[in-house]
Amino acid sequence: MKFIKTPVKGMCDMLPADMRLREEILGMIKETYARYGFMQIETPAMEHIENLTSRQGGDNEKLIFQVLKRGAELKRALDVGKGELADSGLRYDLTVPLARYYANNKEKLPSPFKAFQTGNVWRADNPQKGRFRQFTQCDIDILGDETNLAEIELVSATAAMLQKIFARVGIQDFTIHINDRRILRGAALQAGFSEEEIPSVLISLDKFDKIGLGGIRAELLENGYPMERVDCYLSLYEQRKEGLSCREFCRDVEESCLDSGVVEGLEEIISCVTPMLGEGVKISFDPALVRGMGYYTGPIFEVSMDGYGFSIAGGGRYDQMIGKFCGQEICASGFSIGFERIITILKDHLQEGSQRQESHVAYLLDKRVPLEKKLEVFQEAARLREAGGVVTIQPMRKNVKRQVELLEAEGYGEFRKIYAD
Amino acid sequence: MKFIKTPVKGMCDMLPADMRLREEILGMIKETYARYGFMQIETPAMEHIENLTSRQGGDNEKLIFQVLKRGAELKRALDVGKGELADSGLRYDLTVPLARYYANNKEKLPSPFKAFQTGNVWRADNPQKGRFRQFTQCDIDILGDETNLAEIELVSATAAMLQKIFARVGIQDFTIHINDRRILRGAALQAGFSEEEIPSVLISLDKFDKIGLGGIRAELLENGYPMERVDCYLSLYEQRKEGLSCREFCRDVEESCLDSGVVEGLEEIISCVTPMLGEGVKISFDPALVRGMGYYTGPIFEVSMDGYGFSIAGGGRYDQMIGKFCGQEICASGFSIGFERIITILKDHLQEGSQRQESHVAYLLDKRVPLEKKLEVFQEAARLREAGGVVTIQPMRKNVKRQVELLEAEGYGEFRKIYAD
Repeated sequence: MKFIKTPVKGMCDMLPADMRLREEILGMIKETYARYGFMQIETPAMEHIENLTSRQGGDNEKLIFQVLKRGAELKRALDVGKGELADSGLRYDLTVPLARYYANNKEKLPSPFKAFQTGNVWRADNPQKGRFRQFTQCDIDILGDETNLAEIELVSATAAMLQKIFARVGIQDFTIHINDRRILRGAALQAGFSEEEIPSVLISLDKFDKIGLGGIRAELLENGYPMERVDCYLSLYEQRKEGLSCREFCRDVEESCLDSGVVEGLEEIISCVTPMLGEGVKISFDPALVRGMGYYTGPIFEVSMDGYGFSIAGGGRYDQMIGKFCGQEICASGFSIGFERIITILKDHLQEGSQRQESHVAYLLDKRVPLEKKLEVFQEAARLREAGGVVTIQPMRKNVKRQVELLEAEGYGEFRKIYAD
Repeated sequence: MKFIKTPVKGMCDMLPADMRLREEILGMIKETYARYGFMQIETPAMEHIENLTSRQGGDNEKLIFQVLKRGAELKRALDVGKGELADSGLRYDLTVPLARYYANNKEKLPSPFKAFQTGNVWRADNPQKGRFRQFTQCDIDILGDETNLAEIELVSATAAMLQKIFARVGIQDFTIHINDRRILRGAALQAGFSEEEIPSVLISLDKFDKIGLGGIRAELLENGYPMERVDCYLSLYEQRKEGLSCREFCRDVEESCLDSGVVEGLEEIISCVTPMLGEGVKISFDPALVRGMGYYTGPIFEVSMDGYGFSIAGGGRYDQMIGKFCGQEICASGFSIGFERIITILKDHLQEGSQRQESHVAYLLDKRVPLEKKLEVFQEAARLREAGGVVTIQPMRKNVKRQVELLEAEGYGEFRKIYAD
């Protein structure tokens, strides 16, 4: 028998201190989202391989952990030689499972349906600092609301939740960036790009913060787009700055390129969300916000924090995806927070060292303590626990100093040593 | 593209009402175990295939969902023909992962280490009523405590937790059965069975409640054991009845068959736990309690409830298993509750129908409501949410009656319809 002590590659053992923080934060998330009327649901970790490879998951589909068929079915697949070996796989996000869940259960659910999901997802990615092969996602989604009330609810719930979490370590400031896929499309059409060229143009625009306007220009030219069109396009983005309104940006985009009501809808989201934001939190129109996934169709949003190069939450409207599972059109909008990233930021700001608490009591019992005395200890402990205290009862070690140290590191603040006499 | 609406075979979509109950119960479990000093940990869903097939998991090892190798490694395995196709698998319990976790992290953990784990496990079992291929387990374990303080803590924490949970539906009564593997061994040795014969004898004894003494006798005779020995053995079990003490049962078991201190240790557990039990809860010595798993070495326990043919919790001491991962002996004792079974019992006793709450407020907005009025609604909702209320803001449907009904089913008790004028 060969035993391996380490977890499988790219996955983590959570130590008690990690879990305490994660559970505390998850508790805040659940509480806040519940108040905003989101209902928690859960889907299995495994999904049919057909659903996972249905081209809704983008590049994540290359990273699926596939689950081997079993018994006779596996034998048949191996015999055939080129048969499929897997019949299911571990989910790589919570969105594909949500689409299937809604298709499966929609008769039993209210409409609009406000869903909250949290759970692990798995990706066979190359592990690197801060990127794991198993990690927790937290998504809220509103299905069946075609109005921008959905976006107002999603953005204000997420803002309220992040504000509460970051208050835990004294951080007040973060920014919600907002844009609309239809504005991105309109600006590209206005500059003369065709519908088919838009995805490639947006891939370049998405690099704004990394390579700047000059870099985007070079890339677009390299991709063979005519200089005149590129310069016309990028002149729109020269005005990108904080405080630029959606209306200002779209001033020169003609009606034929941009559906009516898009600008008003986005400005309304900003107007309704702004008064609900705490001090330090901003919502800002960003014409260069793209978001990677191909399935977005309307407003898109992302949350950033100074000093961190990654976004801490992101989402948007995806009106066509759920329909592919349901066989009928279901509009949808969602916001997903980067749980692991938030934990990283919190850990950066948490004070090192234990937080010992008086209400954490450890009884250390000498081996020879008679039954009578043990009974007393257990009764006393029961009373403390009843009153909300944390109590542990353990045999006293020879090296009691070390034992106390390790318990102090776990928050114990009071030690009662019980001897035989 | 082919989409499948149903979850993979044997797995469940959790509807909002299911999740509310599960989350409420999990909250009670976490809170109670925390007060008893158990520290929550988490291990990945996947484990190395070598660890999962190391013969610690009994029959569960036949039910592993195996995860396919990827890329070059998969190609190599397929080329070789008879190579292993999987490099990992989904965990089928929380005990094997705990053993690996402790081996991997023991330098950072206090000793004794009181661990609490909850999470999903997966078994490719034949699905049937109440048995799923993904289900939640909740385990507490104490590693590195060689004394029976461990069992007293495990049993009293589990009793306190179950009492709290079942109080939710007005159930008071359940029974904790307790025995010791060394007493089972002693009784068999006393009757003349050899060390090697004990496992097979215990398999028969384990069927006491199903086939009775007569059935066990027939089975043992059929297995070729001499009648005299069988009758001598079963005469010990004729005295099995409620209230039989461990000391009485072991009266005729000679010292050479039973280590000294075993009876005293078990009686001490019962003495210390009894005064802490609520009304209706009993702890009772049961000489015929066996528990299936081969790895138990000392006290074993199981919880039953009248009217249910299954046990709702079970555990015991397993002093040799962790050591196989660590390379050094680590004593251990654990108690696992059947989370899904407890949920089944609670659902049997819960009143059908929605529990509408006044603090659950739904705003239903007409499409033509102007921005001004929307701003007011969102501010009002923010105040209610701040005060702990649950609020949802949605577009008003044409069939508003149906919309209200579905929201009532989710607990909403107040509806504010907002019109344009």
